Amino acid sequence: MVAYMNEEALKLTIETGVATYYSRSRKKLWKKGEQSGHIQKVEQILVDCDQDCLVLKVSVDAGQCHVGYDSCFYRAVKKGEPEKLEFIAEKTYDPEEAYGNKG
Amino acid sequence: MVAYMNEEALKLTIETGVATYYSRSRKKLWKKGEQSGHIQKVEQILVDCDQDCLVLKVSVDAGQCHVGYDSCFYRAVKKGEPEKLEFIAEKTYDPEEAYGNKG
Repeated sequence: MVAYMNEEALKLTIETGVATYYSRSRKKLWKKGEQSGHIQKVEQILVDCDQDCLVLKVSVDAGQCHVGYDSCFYRAVKKGEPEKLEFIAEKTYDPEEAYGNKG
Repeated sequence: MVAYMNEEALKLTIETGVATYYSRSRKKLWKKGEQSGHIQKVEQILVDCDQDCLVLKVSVDAGQCHVGYDSCFYRAVKKGEPEKLEFIAEKTYDPEEAYGNKG
Protein backbone atom coordinates (compact mmCIF):
# COMPACT_ATOMS: atom_id res chain seq x y z
CA MET A 1 0.00 0.00 0.00
CA VAL A 2 1.00 3.61 -0.38
CA ALA A 3 0.21 6.21 2.30
CA TYR A 4 1.54 9.44 3.70
CA MET A 5 3.21 10.25 7.01
CA ASN A 6 3.90 13.46 8.79
CA GLU A 7 6.59 13.86 11.44
CA GLU A 8 4.29 12.74 14.25
CA ALA A 9 3.14 9.65 12.33
CA LEU A 10 6.75 8.60 11.74
CA LYS A 11 7.66 9.23 15.39
CA LEU A 12 4.72 7.11 16.59
CA THR A 13 5.52 4.37 14.08
CA ILE A 14 9.11 4.13 15.34
CA GLU A 15 8.12 4.35 19.03
CA THR A 16 5.25 1.85 18.96
CA GLY A 17 6.39 -0.49 16.19
CA VAL A 18 2.91 -0.23 14.66
CA ALA A 19 2.45 1.64 11.38
CA THR A 20 0.72 5.00 11.76
CA TYR A 21 0.07 7.27 8.79
CA TYR A 22 -1.36 10.73 8.19
CA SER A 23 -4.62 10.91 6.29
CA ARG A 24 -4.51 13.93 3.99
CA SER A 25 -8.26 13.75 3.32
CA ARG A 26 -9.25 13.47 6.99
CA LYS A 27 -6.35 15.67 8.12
CA LYS A 28 -5.50 13.42 11.07
CA LEU A 29 -3.24 10.63 12.19
CA TRP A 30 -4.39 7.23 11.07
CA LYS A 31 -3.24 4.05 12.76
CA LYS A 32 -3.65 1.48 10.00
CA GLY A 33 -6.09 -1.18 11.23
CA GLU A 34 -7.77 0.98 13.87
CA GLN A 35 -11.13 0.06 12.26
CA SER A 36 -10.46 -3.33 10.67
CA GLY A 37 -8.13 -4.67 13.34
CA HIS A 38 -5.53 -5.40 10.64
CA ILE A 39 -2.60 -3.54 12.11
CA GLN A 40 0.85 -3.55 10.55
CA LYS A 41 3.74 -4.62 12.77
CA VAL A 42 6.82 -2.83 11.52
CA GLU A 43 9.88 -4.99 10.97
CA GLN A 44 12.13 -2.54 9.13
CA ILE A 45 11.97 1.02 7.83
CA LEU A 46 13.96 1.72 4.67
CA VAL A 47 14.85 5.27 3.65
CA ASP A 48 15.40 6.41 0.07
CA CYS A 49 18.31 8.35 -1.38
CA ASP A 50 16.80 11.84 -1.10
CA GLN A 51 15.01 11.03 2.17
CA ASP A 52 11.46 11.81 1.12
CA CYS A 53 10.12 8.24 0.83
CA LEU A 54 10.11 5.27 3.16
CA VAL A 55 9.45 1.58 2.63
CA LEU A 56 7.95 -0.10 5.67
CA LYS A 57 8.49 -3.83 5.84
CA VAL A 58 5.58 -5.05 7.93
CA SER A 59 3.84 -8.20 9.01
CA VAL A 60 0.05 -8.34 8.96
CA ASP A 61 -2.28 -11.04 10.19
CA ALA A 62 -5.00 -11.49 7.57
CA GLY A 63 -4.21 -8.81 5.01
CA GLN A 64 -4.15 -5.06 4.73
CA CYS A 65 -5.83 -3.78 1.58
CA HIS A 66 -9.36 -2.55 2.36
CA VAL A 67 -10.69 -4.65 -0.53
CA GLY A 68 -9.58 -7.90 1.15
CA TYR A 69 -6.15 -8.63 -0.30
CA ASP A 70 -2.70 -8.90 1.27
CA SER A 71 -1.50 -6.15 -1.04
CA CYS A 72 -3.29 -3.22 -2.68
CA PHE A 73 -1.46 -4.21 -5.87
CA TYR A 74 -3.63 -7.26 -6.61
CA ARG A 75 -4.09 -6.48 -10.31
CA ALA A 76 -1.70 -6.14 -13.25
CA VAL A 77 -1.92 -4.51 -16.68
CA LYS A 78 -2.59 -7.39 -19.08
CA LYS A 79 0.18 -7.98 -21.63
CA GLY A 80 -1.00 -7.35 -25.18
CA GLU A 81 -4.28 -5.89 -23.89
CA PRO A 82 -3.13 -2.92 -21.77
CA GLU A 83 -6.66 -1.56 -21.45
CA LYS A 84 -7.47 -4.60 -19.30
CA LEU A 85 -6.41 -5.53 -15.77
CA GLU A 86 -5.95 -9.09 -14.60
CA PHE A 87 -6.21 -10.28 -11.01
CA ILE A 88 -2.93 -11.72 -9.73
CA ALA A 89 -3.87 -12.47 -6.09
CA GLU A 90 -6.49 -14.17 -3.96
CA LYS A 91 -8.45 -12.46 -1.19
CA THR A 92 -7.09 -13.23 2.25
CA TYR A 93 -9.98 -11.88 4.37
CA ASP A 94 -13.57 -10.69 4.08
CA PRO A 95 -13.66 -6.88 4.04
CA GLU A 96 -17.40 -6.88 4.87
CA GLU A 97 -16.63 -8.60 8.13
CA ALA A 98 -13.67 -6.37 8.93
CA TYR A 99 -15.27 -3.03 8.04
CA GLY A 100 -19.00 -3.86 8.38
CA ASN A 101 -21.33 -2.88 11.21
CA LYS A 102 -20.02 -4.56 14.33
CA GLY A 103 -22.89 -3.32 16.50
CA MET B 1 12.59 4.13 -6.55
CA VAL B 2 9.53 6.34 -6.44
CA ALA B 3 8.60 8.63 -9.34
CA TYR B 4 5.58 10.19 -10.97
CA MET B 5 3.87 9.51 -14.28
CA ASN B 6 1.37 11.44 -16.30
CA GLU B 7 -0.89 9.85 -18.90
CA GLU B 8 1.69 10.16 -21.68
CA ALA B 9 4.45 8.65 -19.54
CA LEU B 10 2.28 5.63 -18.76
CA LYS B 11 1.28 5.24 -22.41
CA LEU B 12 4.94 5.34 -23.53
CA THR B 13 5.96 2.92 -20.78
CA ILE B 14 3.34 0.39 -21.91
CA GLU B 15 4.08 0.86 -25.62
CA THR B 16 7.88 0.74 -25.44
CA GLY B 17 8.38 -1.59 -22.45
CA VAL B 18 10.89 0.93 -21.06
CA ALA B 19 9.97 2.94 -17.96
CA THR B 20 9.23 6.60 -18.66
CA TYR B 21 8.24 9.00 -15.90
CA TYR B 22 7.18 12.63 -15.63
CA SER B 23 9.56 14.95 -13.84
CA ARG B 24 7.50 17.42 -11.80
CA SER B 25 10.53 19.66 -11.20
CA ARG B 26 11.59 19.76 -14.86
CA LYS B 27 7.98 19.59 -16.10
CA LYS B 28 8.82 17.08 -18.82
CA LEU B 29 8.82 13.41 -19.67
CA TRP B 30 11.80 11.58 -18.29
CA LYS B 31 12.95 8.26 -19.68
CA LYS B 32 14.80 6.73 -16.75
CA GLY B 33 18.39 6.09 -17.82
CA GLU B 34 18.45 8.62 -20.67
CA GLN B 35 21.57 10.12 -19.09
CA SER B 36 23.14 7.21 -17.20
CA GLY B 37 22.22 4.49 -19.67
CA HIS B 38 20.57 2.51 -16.86
CA ILE B 39 17.16 2.02 -18.39
CA GLN B 40 14.43 -0.03 -16.74
CA LYS B 41 12.92 -2.86 -18.78
CA VAL B 42 9.36 -3.29 -17.59
CA GLU B 43 8.29 -6.83 -16.79
CA GLN B 44 4.97 -6.18 -15.09
CA ILE B 45 2.83 -3.20 -14.09
CA LEU B 46 0.74 -3.64 -10.94
CA VAL B 47 -2.20 -1.36 -10.19
CA ASP B 48 -3.45 -0.52 -6.71
CA CYS B 49 -6.99 -0.71 -5.33
CA ASP B 50 -7.98 2.91 -5.97
CA GLN B 51 -5.96 3.12 -9.18
CA ASP B 52 -3.72 6.05 -8.31
CA CYS B 53 -0.46 4.14 -7.76
CA LEU B 54 1.49 1.64 -9.83
CA VAL B 55 4.28 -0.77 -9.02
CA LEU B 56 6.60 -1.39 -11.96
CA LYS B 57 8.51 -4.64 -11.81
CA VAL B 58 11.60 -3.94 -13.86
CA SER B 59 14.96 -5.38 -14.75
CA VAL B 60 18.01 -3.13 -14.79
CA ASP B 61 21.55 -3.87 -15.87
CA ALA B 62 23.88 -2.33 -13.28
CA GLY B 63 21.54 -0.49 -10.95
CA GLN B 64 19.11 2.37 -10.99
CA CYS B 65 19.53 4.67 -7.99
CA HIS B 66 21.55 7.76 -8.97
CA VAL B 67 23.80 7.21 -5.94
CA GLY B 68 25.00 3.87 -7.32
CA TYR B 69 22.75 1.27 -5.72
CA ASP B 70 20.27 -1.22 -7.16
CA SER B 71 17.55 0.35 -5.06
CA CYS B 72 17.07 3.88 -3.72
CA PHE B 73 16.17 2.23 -0.41
CA TYR B 74 19.74 1.28 0.52
CA ARG B 75 19.52 2.48 4.14
CA ALA B 76 17.36 1.49 7.10
CA VAL B 77 16.43 3.17 10.37
CA LYS B 78 18.68 1.57 13.00
CA LYS B 79 16.82 -0.40 15.66
CA GLY B 80 17.26 1.10 19.10
CA GLU B 81 18.94 4.19 17.60
CA PRO B 82 16.24 5.60 15.29
CA GLU B 83 18.14 8.83 14.74
CA LYS B 84 20.75 6.80 12.84
CA LEU B 85 20.59 5.12 9.43
CA GLU B 86 22.49 1.95 8.56
CA PHE B 87 23.53 0.91 5.07
CA ILE B 88 21.92 -2.36 4.01
CA ALA B 89 23.21 -2.66 0.42
CA GLU B 90 26.38 -2.52 -1.63
CA LYS B 91 26.92 -0.19 -4.58
CA THR B 92 26.45 -1.91 -7.92
CA TYR B 93 27.90 0.76 -10.21
CA ASP B 94 29.96 3.95 -10.10
CA PRO B 95 27.65 6.96 -10.38
CA GLU B 96 30.58 9.25 -11.30
CA GLU B 97 31.16 7.17 -14.38
CA ALA B 98 27.47 6.97 -15.29
CA TYR B 99 26.60 10.62 -14.73
CA GLY B 100 30.01 12.28 -15.12
CA ASN B 101 31.28 14.18 -18.12
CA LYS B 102 31.39 11.77 -21.02
CA GLY B 103 32.89 14.31 -23.38
